[in-house]
Amino acid sequence: MATPITPFPRVKHQREVFADGLMLDCGVHIAPLAVAYRTYGRLNADRSNAILVCHALTGDQYLAETQPLTGKGGWWGNLIGPGKRVDTDRFFVICVNVLGGCMGSTGPAEPRNGVDGDPWGTDFPAITIRDMVRAQKRLVDHFGIARLLAVVGGSMGGMQVLEWAATYPEAVFAAAPIACATHHSAQNIAFHEVGRAAIHNDPDWKGGRYWEDGRVPAQGLAVARMIAHITYLSEAALTRKFGRRLRGAPSLTFLEDVFEVESYLRHQGSSFVRRFDANSYLTITRAMDYFDLAAEYGGELRAAFQGTNTRFLVASFSSDWLFPTAQSRDIVRALNAAAANVSFVEIASDKGHDAFLLEEPDFYAALGGFLVGAAERVGV
Amino acid sequence: MATPITPFPRVKHQREVFADGLMLDCGVHIAPLAVAYRTYGRLNADRSNAILVCHALTGDQYLAETQPLTGKGGWWGNLIGPGKRVDTDRFFVICVNVLGGCMGSTGPAEPRNGVDGDPWGTDFPAITIRDMVRAQKRLVDHFGIARLLAVVGGSMGGMQVLEWAATYPEAVFAAAPIACATHHSAQNIAFHEVGRAAIHNDPDWKGGRYWEDGRVPAQGLAVARMIAHITYLSEAALTRKFGRRLRGAPSLTFLEDVFEVESYLRHQGSSFVRRFDANSYLTITRAMDYFDLAAEYGGELRAAFQGTNTRFLVASFSSDWLFPTAQSRDIVRALNAAAANVSFVEIASDKGHDAFLLEEPDFYAALGGFLVGAAERVGV
Repeated sequence: MATPITPFPRVKHQREVFADGLMLDCGVHIAPLAVAYRTYGRLNADRSNAILVCHALTGDQYLAETQPLTGKGGWWGNLIGPGKRVDTDRFFVICVNVLGGCMGSTGPAEPRNGVDGDPWGTDFPAITIRDMVRAQKRLVDHFGIARLLAVVGGSMGGMQVLEWAATYPEAVFAAAPIACATHHSAQNIAFHEVGRAAIHNDPDWKGGRYWEDGRVPAQGLAVARMIAHITYLSEAALTRKFGRRLRGAPSLTFLEDVFEVESYLRHQGSSFVRRFDANSYLTITRAMDYFDLAAEYGGELRAAFQGTNTRFLVASFSSDWLFPTAQSRDIVRALNAAAANVSFVEIASDKGHDAFLLEEPDFYAALGGFLVGAAERVGV
Repeated sequence: MATPITPFPRVKHQREVFADGLMLDCGVHIAPLAVAYRTYGRLNADRSNAILVCHALTGDQYLAETQPLTGKGGWWGNLIGPGKRVDTDRFFVICVNVLGGCMGSTGPAEPRNGVDGDPWGTDFPAITIRDMVRAQKRLVDHFGIARLLAVVGGSMGGMQVLEWAATYPEAVFAAAPIACATHHSAQNIAFHEVGRAAIHNDPDWKGGRYWEDGRVPAQGLAVARMIAHITYLSEAALTRKFGRRLRGAPSLTFLEDVFEVESYLRHQGSSFVRRFDANSYLTITRAMDYFDLAAEYGGELRAAFQGTNTRFLVASFSSDWLFPTAQSRDIVRALNAAAANVSFVEIASDKGHDAFLLEEPDFYAALGGFLVGAAERVGV
């Protein structure tokens, strides 16, 4: 049963368009390349105070301001802003919608020619985390920033941080990969694959050409979001939030939502489809699945960081079972093996993977302190 | 895109039909009540050697023989049989298809009148784990067995074991609830709900009346199975089985299965729909979600076991994250609080929840020893 919903509205996003395009890891050259972004604070005279923040799978560039589709505050609005832990009176913060995203950067939902007409749809080539980073580098170069004070991000954002540090070590003074890993595990791939199967199965997906009817595969995308959402929360967080509480009368039925956790998940699913493109979700989940930093360096993870001068803060959350602490320790071990400057913190939290998006005082203090320390070192 | 497949064939199962039916927890009386079952070994003269084995969500009564739909061996065929750890030369083993199931017992796929005509479909009432146990009790009574030597089961089977011990303490000499819990957690409910949403979203589900067209909601049911299957395996088991291995050439694409774990999951999904009924899946997952033994006893778990003379073996598996060891410890604590005779073992295994179905020597030894000890105590 298809649910007719309005496809998410097209918003005019701030962006740079690079006519010469980008060569991708898959060997396809795409042109033009549009890079949508938002900045907060001011770039100083010697261009030394720039912090690039990389967003996660379903995040976007509206980091510290109202998101135009949802009307909700920015996803790190509590952390970043004037006078906040990451103080935009001091730092120039850049956030880029990832390549393959659906908030203005080149991706499946964007017109193929960058201006109007049919979107890329399923013709959009497969991309990698490194391709996302290359697109961001174009914007950083455009700003005339030779070296970023820091690159910061959680989850898929953390994968981008690792890729930045490996690919452009001279351009990254400090790097904070948070709640992430050097590769996607078999379990992570499996969860993504089930979400993709749900999208593919939706008759409204129409082999990826859903835009032709002005419809979206809302039910498939919602199920994909529901699955993912469970993996973002810890068992403890779900139990605290909902436990086994019933909605209204505890009637015995096998057809209706009866537990509060069910209607919460359904709400998560249905609100997601109003802000996210299904082909974009397919593209980006695949990019995460492909991510395997060691494989890019001959199977030797430490080779990705050989000779690096970047300072690292690696952070994990104790109840994160999607990117557990052990995976962050693998990053630390590789950095140690490359004799890098690395600090590691596991934040005690029972909120699961989601904790990196929530106001966790210890995390804010660790990340804020790390960035201030880096700033003092370079005289910002 | 619907995949036309033949609905699973109707097999003639061994069963007893009780014309007077059964009163359910939801207040509905269903009649007739069909209870499909298989037995292994022989009931001794004083009817003291009977072991009831309760199956899990997608299991069935074909415990120790070829399953007629899949042609595969029984799900505990390595554990139970002549000369095996649970020796059917000594014990009379009974396994019942659960109420709500689709292998011959009364359920959504069975004709409403128990003989022919339209199936119950979505008119089938909501059932509970206790209802399943009540149906089994009818068969046990029919055999003239006043006291079972043991009731044994894993996962949802373990929930039935707990319910047996609580509801019919005099009829259970020994009980082994394995890899289970006294209630379904919010996370467990959430995973089930996503699976149900996938089934409901399948246009071939047709509000549960799919049988009218001789079709089944194959894609939705397959996605539900895929999700569940991930929860049955540990991260380590998935990594060992598949890791990040690619199928064939590592082509970069976002539309095809590229990792081995993906095609494995798809195979799990598509083979499941050839043996399981979607409405049955909805019914049984709901029964698991409703299960909350303490709630049946005024919120006091130990009250469920007050004064019990049953001997218990509680077993968990170290890498089971669906029913983690902590939940088995909760059972043990409640039994201790009721001054029950209880032994507990956590089996070291990296195979996840699935371990209870696999040949785990320590588990086989613990369960086998427990049953032999019980048998010796009653002189079997």
